Parts: sequence; C-alpha cells; structure tokens
Amino acid sequence: SVKPFLSPMAVSNIRYGPGVTKEVGMDLKNMGAKNVCLMTDKNLAQLPPVQVAMDSLVKNGIPFTVYDNVRVEPTDASFMEAIEFARKGAFDAYVAVGGGSTMDTCKAANLYTSSPHSDFLDYVSAPIGKGKPVSVPLKPLIAVPTTTGTGSETTGAAIFDYERLKVKTGIASRAIKPTLGLIDPLHTLHMPARVVANSGFDVLCHALESYTALPYHLRSPCPSNPITRPAYQGSNPISDIWAVHALRIVAKYLKRAVRNPDDLEARSHMHLASAFAGIGFGNAGVHLCHGMSYPISGLVKTYKAKDYNVDHPLVPHGLSVVLTSPAVFTFTAQMFPERHLETAEILGADTRSARIQDAGPVLADTLRKFLFDLDVDDGLAAVGYSKADIPALVKGTLPQERVTKLSPRPQSEEDLAALFEASMKLY
Amino acid sequence: SVKPFLSPMAVSNIRYGPGVTKEVGMDLKNMGAKNVCLMTDKNLAQLPPVQVAMDSLVKNGIPFTVYDNVRVEPTDASFMEAIEFARKGAFDAYVAVGGGSTMDTCKAANLYTSSPHSDFLDYVSAPIGKGKPVSVPLKPLIAVPTTTGTGSETTGAAIFDYERLKVKTGIASRAIKPTLGLIDPLHTLHMPARVVANSGFDVLCHALESYTALPYHLRSPCPSNPITRPAYQGSNPISDIWAVHALRIVAKYLKRAVRNPDDLEARSHMHLASAFAGIGFGNAGVHLCHGMSYPISGLVKTYKAKDYNVDHPLVPHGLSVVLTSPAVFTFTAQMFPERHLETAEILGADTRSARIQDAGPVLADTLRKFLFDLDVDDGLAAVGYSKADIPALVKGTLPQERVTKLSPRPQSEEDLAALFEASMKLY
Ligand SMILES: NC(=O)c1ccc[n+]([C@@H]2O[C@H](COP(=O)([O-])OP(=O)(O)OC[C@H]3O[C@@H](n4cnc5c(N)ncnc54)[C@H](O)[C@@H]3O)[C@@H](O)[C@H]2O)c1
Ligand SMILES: NC(=O)c1ccc[n+]([C@@H]2O[C@H](COP(=O)([O-])OP(=O)(O)OC[C@H]3O[C@@H](n4cnc5c(N)ncnc54)[C@H](O)[C@@H]3O)[C@@H](O)[C@H]2O)c1
Ligand SMILES: [Fe+2]
Ligand SMILES: [Fe+2]
Repeated sequence: SVKPFLSPMAVSNIRYGPGVTKEVGMDLKNMGAKNVCLMTDKNLAQLPPVQVAMDSLVKNGIPFTVYDNVRVEPTDASFMEAIEFARKGAFDAYVAVGGGSTMDTCKAANLYTSSPHSDFLDYVSAPIGKGKPVSVPLKPLIAVPTTTGTGSETTGAAIFDYERLKVKTGIASRAIKPTLGLIDPLHTLHMPARVVANSGFDVLCHALESYTALPYHLRSPCPSNPITRPAYQGSNPISDIWAVHALRIVAKYLKRAVRNPDDLEARSHMHLASAFAGIGFGNAGVHLCHGMSYPISGLVKTYKAKDYNVDHPLVPHGLSVVLTSPAVFTFTAQMFPERHLETAEILGADTRSARIQDAGPVLADTLRKFLFDLDVDDGLAAVGYSKADIPALVKGTLPQERVTKLSPRPQSEEDLAALFEASMKLY
Repeated sequence: SVKPFLSPMAVSNIRYGPGVTKEVGMDLKNMGAKNVCLMTDKNLAQLPPVQVAMDSLVKNGIPFTVYDNVRVEPTDASFMEAIEFARKGAFDAYVAVGGGSTMDTCKAANLYTSSPHSDFLDYVSAPIGKGKPVSVPLKPLIAVPTTTGTGSETTGAAIFDYERLKVKTGIASRAIKPTLGLIDPLHTLHMPARVVANSGFDVLCHALESYTALPYHLRSPCPSNPITRPAYQGSNPISDIWAVHALRIVAKYLKRAVRNPDDLEARSHMHLASAFAGIGFGNAGVHLCHGMSYPISGLVKTYKAKDYNVDHPLVPHGLSVVLTSPAVFTFTAQMFPERHLETAEILGADTRSARIQDAGPVLADTLRKFLFDLDVDDGLAAVGYSKADIPALVKGTLPQERVTKLSPRPQSEEDLAALFEASMKLY
C-alpha cells in the first residue's frame, strides 16, 4: 500500500517519499556544495541508508568525507570530537544520515565550526551553559532521519549528555534547524524492533507533553522584545494540531510498526509522525517526562538496551521519557483534565463514562496498558534504579528548567521525588 | 472569551495575538530597518489597524513613508505604480497593513525593486508571463492581515488583474513569502459584514480545493531536480491537516463572524483559519474554483460589491471563487468521493445514509445551503454574467493551468463551459 514515487511531498523544510534519499546529491549540487561532510554512526555506516546517500553524492560528483564516529546518545566529548573533525575538514555543507544522535551531533559540528571563537558552553542552554543566541551564519545541513522518533530533522535542538554533571542537556536555537530534512521511509525497514518501539515512545511523549504544556498565553513573563522570547513557547493552536495528529498515528500504527519489520505502511506513518510531533514540540516545548528523562539517561549504570548495537550502557532516550509518563500525567491532569482525557481516548481508552476528575488515572492506565502491550521494562527499577537514586535523579532534573517550566503544574523537589518514586514500577 | 495577551503565539513566520501589531516597530528595529515603506489602501488608511502600526513605528523611532494607493483587487497598472513608488523610496523594509490586495501589492513592490533589471512579465506565471525563478535577495516584509481570507501573509503568491487580457493572474515564488506575518485579531472588528463573508468564502475554497487537489504522488511528470518542482505540489498529508482544520473553523465560526461585528471569538478564529488554509493551499495548491474565478473577476462589468468602499466595479475575490463551488465539486467528486463526502460532513451535512456515488451532489447541496444562509448572490447571473459570456469566461480560464492542472479530474473546454453554465444560478 505504499504510494508510487512519482513525486515526493515537500513542505517547509521537509521532503518525504520512498527513495527521496537518492536526491541528496542533487540538493547539495543545487546548494553549490563542493566539500561535504557526511555524518553517521558506526552501526549505520554498514547499512543501506548510508550507502544510498553516498551513491547519490558520487553520482552527482560531490566530493565528501564520512565521519562515522557519532556516539549513540552523544556526550560533550563525542560532540567535541565531531566538531574537531569538522573544523579540520573546512566543509561547506553537511549531511546527517541517522537518528537523533547523528542529527544532533551534526548540528553541533556545524554550529561550532561556524563560530570558531565560541566556548562549548556558550550555546548550551542555561543554567548549565550560557544560552547565548546564535548570530553567526551556518552551513547548509541536510538531515536524513533513519529512526521514527526524535523529529530532530525539524527542530533547533541538539541534545547531549554532559558527562561532568552526569545529566543530559542541550543547545536550543532556531539557527541549528536543518536546512532540509529528507524523510525516506525505506530506511525504517532496517530498524530493529526495540529501536522502533523506543523512538515511537519519544514521538508519543513529544505529542503528549506539547499538547499538555502550559498554554502560550499563560506563560509569563513575556519578554517585551520578540527577539528574546524562547523557542519553546507553550502549547498553542498550531502545535496542538501537530500533537493530536501525531498521537493519532501513534495510536494506529506504532504497535504494527514494532511487531512487523516489513510493515512499510505502519513504519512510513511513524516516520511522518516523528516529523509532525517534532514540528509541534519544536515550538510548543516538552515538559516533565523529558525534563526527568535527562538524569535517567545520564546516570545510567549497567543497563544494556536490547537491539542497540553499542558498546556502552544505555537507557535509550525514548525509553527514558516514557517510563515516567504514567506518573507525570497523573500529576499534571488536574490542570487541563479535558486534554488529558482526550489523549487517553485517542490512545484507545473508552472515556464515555470517565469522570473529569479521573482524567489523570485514566490516561495513566491507558499508557501502562500501551507500554505493557509493547513489552516495556517494568519501570525505573527495571533499568537499574532504586529509591536510593532518587535524590540524584531530582538533582539532575532541577537544571532542566528550559523544559520543566512548561509543565502545566508547577513542581517542587518533593513532587519530583514522588514522581520518580511512583515510576519505579509500572505494572 | 478572548485569551489575555500575556504572550503571542509565534510559529514559523507568523505571530498571533490580540494587540500584536504594537510589536511591529520593535520587529523592524530588530531587523535593523531605517527606511520603511508602509503600504495600505485608502480605506484602511483611515482606520485603527494602520494607526496602531504607525504608532508602533513612531514609538520605536523607525523612519517610514506611507503608500496608501493600493488598489482593492490590484491590476498590473496598480502594481506598477506601487513598484515605481518603492523604487524611488529605496526602502530597506516593508510593512503591508491590509487584506490580500495590500499584501500582494507590497510583495510585488519588494520583488521588482530588488530586481531592477527585470521586466514585469519575467516573474508572472507562465503562460501569461515567463515564470522565471527568483534568485535575487528581497528586503524584509512584514504582513499585517486585516481581512480573514487570503492567508497571503503565509504564501508566496501575489495576484493581480492583467488588464490587457482582462484576466487575473499572479506571481508565485517562495521568495516573496513575507518574512513575518503579524495576525492581530483586533483588526477584524473593523471589517464590514460582506468583507467577512467574502473573505471567509476564500478560506472555504482554499480548504476545499487544496483538500481535493490531485494528490502529490500522482502528479506527473515530477521534474527530476527538486529545484524545478512547482510550489503547488498537490494535496498531501501535511496540507490535508491544515485544510481540514481550517474547514472545521469555517463550519463553526463563519456565520457568527459575519453576523455579529463584536464577536471577537468567532472573528479571531476566522483570522487564524485564513492563515491555516494559506499554509495548506500555499503548498498543495488550489484548482478549479480559483482558476475559473480569475476571469469572473477580470471580466467584471458593472457589479458593485456591497460593503466595499471602492470606486470601481468589483466581484470580490472570495465571491468569485465560491459562486462556482457547487458546480465544481459536483464535477470533481467522482475522483475522490470519500474526501468530498467528508468535507460535506464537516460543513454540517448528515452523511450517514449518503451513497458514495452521491458525494458530489451532497457537497454541492451543503454548499448551496451554506451560501444561501449567508445571503450570497444567486450565481454568476446575479453578478452580471449571462450565457453569452461563457466563451470569454472559458478563454480566461485556459491560461490558469498553474492551478487548473491540480484539479483531480482533467477538464476540457466543454467541461469548463458546462461548469460556468451550471453556476449561473445557485438556488
Ligand atoms: N534534537 C531533538 O529535537 C531531539 C528530540 C528527541 C531526542 N533527541 C536525542 O536523540 C537521541 C536519540 O535518537 P534516536 O532515538 O533517533 O536514536 P539514535 O540515533 O540514538 O540511534 C539508536 C540506534 O539505532 C540505530 N539505527 C538508527 N536508525 C537505524 C536504521 N534505520 N536501521 C538500523 N539501525 C538504526 C543506530 O545505529 C543506533 O544504534 C538522544 O540523544 C535524544 O536525546 C533529540
Ligand atoms: N496572495 C495570495 O495568496 C492570495 C490568496 C487569495 C486571494 N488573493 C487576492 O487578495 C485579494 C483580496 O484580498 P482580501 O479579500 O483580503 O480583501 P482586500 O484586500 O481586497 O480588501 C477588501 C476591502 O476590505 C477593506 N478592509 C480590509 N480590511 C479591513 C478591516 N479590518 N476593516 C475595514 N475594512 C477593511 C479594504 O479596505 C477593501 O475595501 C484579491 O486580489 C485576491 O485575488 C491573494
Ligand atoms: Fe524526545
Ligand atoms: Fe483565494
């Protein structure tokens, strides 16, 4: 049921269609590129998505160099290494073929190479970094997402693990949004099942969090000069459209996409859903699941994620956000209960007789059932955390105010501790 | 029920909020503007929207000149006059405060001033003009829409009446899309009822036509180089979202917005709907209602539109598109009947027992009832046309292939004649 590829769909900075990666060389030629850096990770370097992109570059006579040392779930050190490589190469354009890890690394390499006098922390979000606005021009960057999760091809975010603090943080600026995203659903056929599941949970949380985020018109103070307003502005009628649409796709296609590696229809829809959710949260923002996920990933002990071909312990991003989702939405539902009920219904709950004051538990139960059906580990305990870790998890969440302040309900340290505790076991 | 204005909503190139026009001076200052051209029409020049914009420029110390000679439904001559004015002024930024007529005139002034060696026809769509791609850099243009119709603040189109051929045509290029659209619903409170109605019909047709346009993956040939693909690519999953959403708003709010000048809630929603539909059709395209409307406007005889404060005969754009809509969708429904039925349902029809082969008549009846309820003139006859005009109307439609080729069903000259004939009387 895949549509014939007569012409791809092109909207703002994304182009979608089976086989669209074959056009990357032409796009770079149109941009006048003569010295391209193709970034990917070691695993993908051996797989067809990278091969197809390289063939297109060769066919169009574009000289390029491959950097395949992207770290899955990047760190400041792995960003640095990529930046160093890019500096030496003096590239005039970038192509990132991979998941969020690759796209984010490539954004960072482009940014710091274009701004050679900046310290690494200059552009990192405050309070960990200085959160300086970007005013230098960057080189064109084409993102070719191979996972169905982050939507990083549509966002101005680059996330990394700041190893000194053992916490994830990021760079957020419209300036690092890719010039073009080529969404080629054929790449999704190579994804292992848990990568489909975890990146699908990332889409699920992007949609749920942006839809329930503090509405834009209630966020205060509003900086009086438009130029100083943050990229994450709270939920709004436009991001709502993307969030609801992405959520509907997740409800309809995620299970099929995980269970059947050949279901191109389901995986194609999830590929678009990740971009849709990205357009939505890229402007509305996310809140507690993401804010709390950064220490969950950053403090990882020995957990090894199934289906991830990497040599280090890892709680994949999508898993780290979804594990707290039942607790988080139970906590936030009192603020906008109708929206919480509505999302439960989209995810398959029968909400006809639900009382509005039960919106939180109804959504939480719906999420737990959804995660159970998809074989998700039983809570934070199953990925290696215990009660003793809660103070460190809370401490790692506090600097994430860029996102946590978008929670519809303000949260104290005690609230955060209770949310982590409630997430230790799910079923 | 209007939300308090703590902070506006900012998404891609639009910013929305009651009072957001007050920020225009700051935006221009952020852009470094030192010599601004504010364009509007003679009617609006006396009204608050222009006053508020001027006050903001003054407050921010931005030197500016007002051009208020925009023609309502512009012509090549009126474009030329604005271009001439802009050339002499050597402006470094533009602000358009008005409806589609003002925004489109300002886009043209910016384009040709930035491309001083071009002939006027160079950028006009083929076959009337040469349809050359734009490669010169333009000055920043801020669009402040005061009608709830064209969505021109989001599109790369500028439409005018080519007087020599007595037919509307336009310039279509992503390059002329405004840098920023400031959507300030307070301006809608000044709109006369028929301007609300007609610009609402424009939204209705943008949504219906882009939703039923030939799907992007069926459009052929697909130029192999992405750079040569047209902006109007056919319906696609992203434009579909915008179209359906805009249609829902039209169904819910247009009647209220027309009937009650104080209904800020309804008019605010219509103001956003016009932008939403603009984002959708700006990339999917429109088809027969628009293609056929260009001669309907261009060949106007003596019809005077109620509530339009102008000194020339005029079939307002929104009226000229909607009058053929029952006939057009009866004609196109056989191609994608489910979509036609779905839109009828959104517009209030009870389609539970409708047969799929009746999709066209069901949608047409729904439209006729909708138009009747909103006091729309009874067909082309009521705006001055008779059977004898049909050959000229058909002849004026033929060069509109930029849009007519997006019709889901191909059409012969006989088909077009029959569609005009069927649109002579509606009720
Ligand atoms: N920038 C943003 O807006 C944003 C948003 C959410 C998450 N993130 C970040 O993105 C990262 C996670 O990215 P991700 O979930 O896309 O996964 P990933 O890039 O970390 O890749 C996960 C694993 O899947 C493999 N893989 C990827 N595509 C494949 C394919 N088509 N076939 C076979 N194997 C494939 C990779 O080689 C890797 O081993 C995290 O660091 C997270 O914080 C960024
Ligand atoms: N560029 C595009 O994408 C696009 C799309 C559709 C239509 N159009 C074009 O736009 C033009 C029509 O524009 P329109 O429908 O927005 O109307 P308009 O700009 O022609 O204005 C119509 C009338 O309403 C008055 N008016 C506008 N705003 C008002 C307000 N707030 N209060 C009081 N009076 C107000 C104007 O002074 C004028 O008399 C046509 O030329 C049409 O072809 C362009
Ligand atoms: Fe995420
Ligand atoms: Fe229109």
